[in-house]
Amino acid sequence: MQQHSQNFPFKRKPRTIQRTVNRANGASRPVLTKPALAPMPMGVGKHKLRVAIVGGAEEVGRNMTMVEYGKDIILIDCGLQFPEEDQPGIDYIIPNVSYLKGREKDLKAIIITHGHYDHIGGIPHLSPILHHPPIYGTKLTNGIINKRQEDFPDKGRIDLREINVDQPLQLGIFTVEFFRVNHNIPDCVGIIVHTPEGTLVHTGDFKFDLMPIMDEVTDFAKIANLGKQGVLALMSDSTNAPSPGHQISESVIGFTLDDIFRKAHGRIIVGTFASLLNRLQQVIWVSEKYGRKVVIEGFSMKSNIEIAKQLGYLKVNAKTIITPQEAVRLPDDKVTVMCTGAQGESNAALMRIATREHRFFRIQKGDTVIFSSSVIPGNERTVQRLKDTLLKEGARVIHYEMMDVHAGGHAKAEDLKLLFRLLNPKYIIPVEGNRFLLEASKQVAMEVQWPEEHVFVTTNGQIMEFSGGEGHLTKEKIPSDYVMVDGLGVGDVQEVVLRDRQLMSEDGMFVIIVTIKTQTGELIGTPDIISRGFVYMKDAKHLIDEARDKVKRICDNKNPDSGAVNTQLIKNKLRDDIGQFLFQKTQRRPMILPVVIEV
Amino acid sequence: MQQHSQNFPFKRKPRTIQRTVNRANGASRPVLTKPALAPMPMGVGKHKLRVAIVGGAEEVGRNMTMVEYGKDIILIDCGLQFPEEDQPGIDYIIPNVSYLKGREKDLKAIIITHGHYDHIGGIPHLSPILHHPPIYGTKLTNGIINKRQEDFPDKGRIDLREINVDQPLQLGIFTVEFFRVNHNIPDCVGIIVHTPEGTLVHTGDFKFDLMPIMDEVTDFAKIANLGKQGVLALMSDSTNAPSPGHQISESVIGFTLDDIFRKAHGRIIVGTFASLLNRLQQVIWVSEKYGRKVVIEGFSMKSNIEIAKQLGYLKVNAKTIITPQEAVRLPDDKVTVMCTGAQGESNAALMRIATREHRFFRIQKGDTVIFSSSVIPGNERTVQRLKDTLLKEGARVIHYEMMDVHAGGHAKAEDLKLLFRLLNPKYIIPVEGNRFLLEASKQVAMEVQWPEEHVFVTTNGQIMEFSGGEGHLTKEKIPSDYVMVDGLGVGDVQEVVLRDRQLMSEDGMFVIIVTIKTQTGELIGTPDIISRGFVYMKDAKHLIDEARDKVKRICDNKNPDSGAVNTQLIKNKLRDDIGQFLFQKTQRRPMILPVVIEV
Repeated sequence: MQQHSQNFPFKRKPRTIQRTVNRANGASRPVLTKPALAPMPMGVGKHKLRVAIVGGAEEVGRNMTMVEYGKDIILIDCGLQFPEEDQPGIDYIIPNVSYLKGREKDLKAIIITHGHYDHIGGIPHLSPILHHPPIYGTKLTNGIINKRQEDFPDKGRIDLREINVDQPLQLGIFTVEFFRVNHNIPDCVGIIVHTPEGTLVHTGDFKFDLMPIMDEVTDFAKIANLGKQGVLALMSDSTNAPSPGHQISESVIGFTLDDIFRKAHGRIIVGTFASLLNRLQQVIWVSEKYGRKVVIEGFSMKSNIEIAKQLGYLKVNAKTIITPQEAVRLPDDKVTVMCTGAQGESNAALMRIATREHRFFRIQKGDTVIFSSSVIPGNERTVQRLKDTLLKEGARVIHYEMMDVHAGGHAKAEDLKLLFRLLNPKYIIPVEGNRFLLEASKQVAMEVQWPEEHVFVTTNGQIMEFSGGEGHLTKEKIPSDYVMVDGLGVGDVQEVVLRDRQLMSEDGMFVIIVTIKTQTGELIGTPDIISRGFVYMKDAKHLIDEARDKVKRICDNKNPDSGAVNTQLIKNKLRDDIGQFLFQKTQRRPMILPVVIEV
Repeated sequence: MQQHSQNFPFKRKPRTIQRTVNRANGASRPVLTKPALAPMPMGVGKHKLRVAIVGGAEEVGRNMTMVEYGKDIILIDCGLQFPEEDQPGIDYIIPNVSYLKGREKDLKAIIITHGHYDHIGGIPHLSPILHHPPIYGTKLTNGIINKRQEDFPDKGRIDLREINVDQPLQLGIFTVEFFRVNHNIPDCVGIIVHTPEGTLVHTGDFKFDLMPIMDEVTDFAKIANLGKQGVLALMSDSTNAPSPGHQISESVIGFTLDDIFRKAHGRIIVGTFASLLNRLQQVIWVSEKYGRKVVIEGFSMKSNIEIAKQLGYLKVNAKTIITPQEAVRLPDDKVTVMCTGAQGESNAALMRIATREHRFFRIQKGDTVIFSSSVIPGNERTVQRLKDTLLKEGARVIHYEMMDVHAGGHAKAEDLKLLFRLLNPKYIIPVEGNRFLLEASKQVAMEVQWPEEHVFVTTNGQIMEFSGGEGHLTKEKIPSDYVMVDGLGVGDVQEVVLRDRQLMSEDGMFVIIVTIKTQTGELIGTPDIISRGFVYMKDAKHLIDEARDKVKRICDNKNPDSGAVNTQLIKNKLRDDIGQFLFQKTQRRPMILPVVIEV
């Protein structure tokens, strides 16, 4: 498989210069000229290049992109997604890889862009299913993947390999290169895949940060050169596409934090994501500057800091980090508590501190609590309740809306325009976002004159085909349904299970147990009734007694013509009649489970 | 009880002029002068005036304020609140009125500020509990209350009386007056309660709107005069206190809608709240202007429009509103669909249209969908999914974030400052908001130089006492716990029921039924296992068989020394051992319900 190199024959294919006026939203705009494209590789192979966003095109999370040419396949990222409200009890959702069933040997590698769970979280579950293909990541990314793998000792050994950013990889027919990008965790890469049909670029999560923290600046030269050589299609991060302007540098956070720290006289408690390593670094630096020691609270935060420190991605003085026991003996203005739980997670450190359930810390007047992360959609109400509790306990609460303590990790509209201009891809495929975000990316591309038909807003699993320099979005779909992880089960929780959970969470359940003599149909003893989540049983004695009487009458009312007991008939009648009775009495519809025991 | 009139002896009580510099957030501000207060009524009574926010001080919703002097009590508003995520199956939450138990005859009236459910929704449930006190509302408000009452035919007849805004009411010792305010439904009033200890003012929900739609302008003269006479305490709407600047006039929405309607060539679908009557009016007007007929989809919207039309609060041409059957026969550019469901509610019209489940309408290319309401915190993700579906179906989606199609119904920071300056109350009590919003109101008051100790940020049920012109926030609390309405039950769903619902929604449940001979302890037949929401039973046959074997072994393992069966012991053992077994196999913890039948 080494006969293909990255030097495909190039053939100049001049493209018509676009002079259309974009009339989206009915607004007239100045006529911009889209520059003619650089040389574009022409298709030479006998196959079509097939690309699909397996996960991350209709949701935020579980990112995975598939690139296929002939028999060869590579995957980019292998993430997880957190469940929606109508998926109770589910731990998370991972990409569907059933298209690869039976083709595990064709899968040349999984390439990981960076160490966040929405890009690596599927690995422990999917690596064994895929027969442990080589997984490529940068040093820090691999550190985090390895650490997480410790939680899954039974899943087999993954084949993790380190990326050298300056060293191309040959993966079957594909030559893969990398370029450094910035995000809010160090050591992120964008991926360049040279194929017989042209070059694909995948940004992963990225922002342009001219003053990054503990990270190298985006490799603009490599990106620009790539643009000169010709890019067939660009898959780019859509997360912040609806936001106008440029993303703020992570360094700017440092100025705001500095201002807060300079003025605070009590303890400072910073809630943020365990995975925002650059932010953790800044909180450590500013604490050191103002003579504060730092306590880390939260398991995942501790372990991320440990990994990053070991691998040299976090700089911290030897004496800065202390234990909670040491912290409680220090004056308040010498302490920073850096903790998880800024999303209002019920068991995380910040919530336990707020509700006085933390072993060492509780809120006292004079505390400043900084929420240094954006709120994940859907968590607004929970975060609001957490803030209310903190305020009630006497803390001063600073959120990024009130002061600028958050710079996002994702490119905004103007950043995307710069990327598009630098790379100059023929096709743009917005990735990493739900439909709304992908459409916003498309609007951005159209604002800089990409023709609408060259921007593919795809659904999960939809195949995009490229051949002879032309691409199109086909109607073919590979499987992309949700695969739900619940405890040890992967994909075993199906719709019916979720529906039952939801039903029971609405009005509870009502189990009726009757014992009947098989031969005669005679009811033995009193029917048992167990109910949970329906009514408070102690207060509902009368209702339950009435229901029990009704059950007795139903069971006695057996068909005198038939000698044998028809249990199914009795069950159906119990379900229907008792269900109706309870609804009429309570306007609730508990799940009714009739059990008929024959003795 | 008529001996007290509203003309209390006034005594000038000059107050020190404040010249403090507000240093909140460490910012230095220009030194503002708080004007000396107007004459302040002095306490003459033998009782203290007691005020409590019964509901709506730690949440958004279920608004109720209690005013008590001696034996006399009045309530302001009687709302409901929608449940949180950790309250599955609950319909809504209403105020706790147990403080009034046994004192129903002391309750002189419930006064309603306006016809929104967070102000009237508790009436059907609480009016009978309170022995049907007089309930006062304006004409439109009463129309909505009466309409809702039709859903509760068994709750008894409420004693609803109409407010004449210019006519004071004598309610026990209290003289109550009204002043017109604006909101996003017509016919809203603020409430003035003259008490022996001074005058209280309650704004209800309000905004200042100089160009209101189908409504009178706020009565500034009455407010200013009241301020001159002296106000003891002001309870004011905090909903939008964190937003800087002034609220936009509802009329401005009309300009934006006009622009969208003028440019749209296909159908226009407007999703909004059924209760935003002013918005519905504007959509009707702009539709009429552009020759579109309007279909109303959504039961509550239809009924609100019907009430408002009948009472003269909505103007619509005789032929504007058409049926869906008529609409589908018209050209697309002649149709507006105005519907409920802009919050992503699963059964509302907009969702059914998006998911192709609506009887008459489904999305087609060329449709413009306008979300004309803000997103209630917590609904962000659901709304996002709805928008994604609409986009996928081919609609153009306009939300208020993208274009200004939403003007809120609540005063922003600068509006509050104007109110404070006009009314000049001695004390300010922010109401109608969670802690975060109340604190934001307090910040606003402090920015215009109210001393911190004159702004009461109260918790639900906390008694504020006023006597001799001085007020303070006591530590006394009257009951204010959540009262949950679930179907026909009011307050019968308690924590234990909710906890069970949550447990079952996480990992489902697992019922084990064994039949045992009482005398010998011998197991009869095979144990029955019923499980829902735990695993997909068809795929888990092996697991269930293993569990059943384990159940058999547990039941056989009876104590040979004891003749009689100890069912409790068996039940406990089943619960513990099978629970542990299932957790070990699946990492899930279903609720285990062992049933032992003795025969």
